[in-house]
Amino acid sequence: MSQKEEKILLAHGSGGLMMQNLLGSLMFKEFGNEYLDQQTDSATLPVPQGEIAFTTDSFVIDPIFFPGGNIGKLAVCGTVNDLAVSGAIPLYLSVSLIIEEGLPMADLETIVKSLSAEAKKAGVKVVTGDTKVVNRGKCDKIFINTAGVGQFRTDGRRAEGYNSIKAGDCILVTGTIGDHGMAILNARESFHFKSPLLSDCACLNGMVQQLLDEGLQLRFMRDPTRGGVAAVLNELVSKVPFGIEIEESALPLNASVKAMAELLGFDPLSVANEGKLIIVASEEDAPKVLSSLKNHEFGKDASIIGRIVETHPGKVAMTTLTGGKRLIDVPAGELLPRIC
Amino acid sequence: MSQKEEKILLAHGSGGLMMQNLLGSLMFKEFGNEYLDQQTDSATLPVPQGEIAFTTDSFVIDPIFFPGGNIGKLAVCGTVNDLAVSGAIPLYLSVSLIIEEGLPMADLETIVKSLSAEAKKAGVKVVTGDTKVVNRGKCDKIFINTAGVGQFRTDGRRAEGYNSIKAGDCILVTGTIGDHGMAILNARESFHFKSPLLSDCACLNGMVQQLLDEGLQLRFMRDPTRGGVAAVLNELVSKVPFGIEIEESALPLNASVKAMAELLGFDPLSVANEGKLIIVASEEDAPKVLSSLKNHEFGKDASIIGRIVETHPGKVAMTTLTGGKRLIDVPAGELLPRIC
Repeated sequence: MSQKEEKILLAHGSGGLMMQNLLGSLMFKEFGNEYLDQQTDSATLPVPQGEIAFTTDSFVIDPIFFPGGNIGKLAVCGTVNDLAVSGAIPLYLSVSLIIEEGLPMADLETIVKSLSAEAKKAGVKVVTGDTKVVNRGKCDKIFINTAGVGQFRTDGRRAEGYNSIKAGDCILVTGTIGDHGMAILNARESFHFKSPLLSDCACLNGMVQQLLDEGLQLRFMRDPTRGGVAAVLNELVSKVPFGIEIEESALPLNASVKAMAELLGFDPLSVANEGKLIIVASEEDAPKVLSSLKNHEFGKDASIIGRIVETHPGKVAMTTLTGGKRLIDVPAGELLPRIC
Repeated sequence: MSQKEEKILLAHGSGGLMMQNLLGSLMFKEFGNEYLDQQTDSATLPVPQGEIAFTTDSFVIDPIFFPGGNIGKLAVCGTVNDLAVSGAIPLYLSVSLIIEEGLPMADLETIVKSLSAEAKKAGVKVVTGDTKVVNRGKCDKIFINTAGVGQFRTDGRRAEGYNSIKAGDCILVTGTIGDHGMAILNARESFHFKSPLLSDCACLNGMVQQLLDEGLQLRFMRDPTRGGVAAVLNELVSKVPFGIEIEESALPLNASVKAMAELLGFDPLSVANEGKLIIVASEEDAPKVLSSLKNHEFGKDASIIGRIVETHPGKVAMTTLTGGKRLIDVPAGELLPRIC
């Protein structure tokens, strides 16, 4: 059988020779570095004294290939961004694959190469991993878990945390919202929108470090993935004694995302992003944060969308395009399954 | 609907209100600690200067409940043991769940509680996590990924590594072999063996630390999971310029495992364990290691099974019960799928 037609078999995950060959010919080759090459059950890794950031995410996105990325790229971006929003510098990544028997080997190779390329771009090393294969019909093509370890800056700069948030602070979004969710839904259901719908899937650690390099005060950062901007803002007001007011007119929105959301009845505020941040910055620093973001490839469409307010604590209100006020709720029920 | 009949819905994984409620009522309640309670995208964790151990495993075992444990307990043991074999002290665990829509909530609760109890027993804290739900038929009940971070002892004691291995070193196994794999196969296929077949699933970090406390020289440790003892010994000889000789008569084996393996044509050397270690110790220290193991609840049946030899480098040979010699190969092909 040619390499092209080769498929993943149960034996590729059973701990025997075929698994060793797969690890050797693909994983170790793509990810190879001084830590992974130890090939021990756990990687031994240098860390600076103090604190580390540690996070994990499993990715079950459907389809596994989509405009703007694939599950491999996403698995790096999601975990890198969870580290980045704390201000941490991503260092190490674990990669654990659950593969459905019958997955074309060529698909696995594309995914692994994409994962490896994105990790290199983000400056994070894949240092440990795991590969399981389940019988046909017992998972859906491939699921990927990544866990990430990051270090904090030696100058102490990081996201300051909930306690630092004050009334008057500005809320920024680093670009257009809802792109990922709408792109995935479009790819999955084949709505054939003609305008380009691309996932925004990207690693944002570089952009965050640029802000910290400039010494800007960042109260809080979060990547609005599942549940979108609405979920992040509502979580935020649940942790602080303040409310939030945002302006619909200030929300960056791609025309095609707007059109698709309107047609299908989605609120872009509740649709997932994979390459955007919500940032709370002091009133004083917000314009500088905005200007720094606009100078970064992933922040060109950044916008100050609202403020932390003393009125209506615990609630997120939006001034609509028509000048009315609307309460932005926590998204409830089934949003879009399997968008990450 | 009563709590008892409640099932997992897609909405439990969609980032909205139902997910928040599930996290609050189950995950944060069970796992709660000062780090997890930060409820940030990544946990901020103190680490000592120097090195950390970092590892990951995904668990796709079928059935999810089995004699001797369940997938939750296993997900702790597997990752804790991967840290333990390097000599590291497990500190932090991430837990990422992929749940099939329709899983009874009561099953999830049992699994999460079991995971939490085993983590507490092993002295490791669940500090970060993720929950995904996929449509019915797109995974099999529940898959769990855990990643673990450990610290090394301040006295510098740890597994010495491949380079320390010398001809004459002794090879020990910490107890009966093949229990986990045969117990899972029995539970899955309902062979109705009357003699008890229990998984050996256990966290071995305490036993390893006991050996290190006693200052014993441990060249190498590995938990023989997928591929069993045969896979570990063959990997070992592939990394060192020596061979291995083991004695069949020295292999600890439960009568029921022996019977089932014989009946079904399995070689217990290739069957998975989840609560055993292969240890290479110096000739001088091996009897002390054996005696220390026998004093531990998970090492009662420990045995010196063989030696590192200068003859036949790269090969593992076994003196059989009848006095013949047999080459122990890397297990090839499909062994037992989904035993971890």
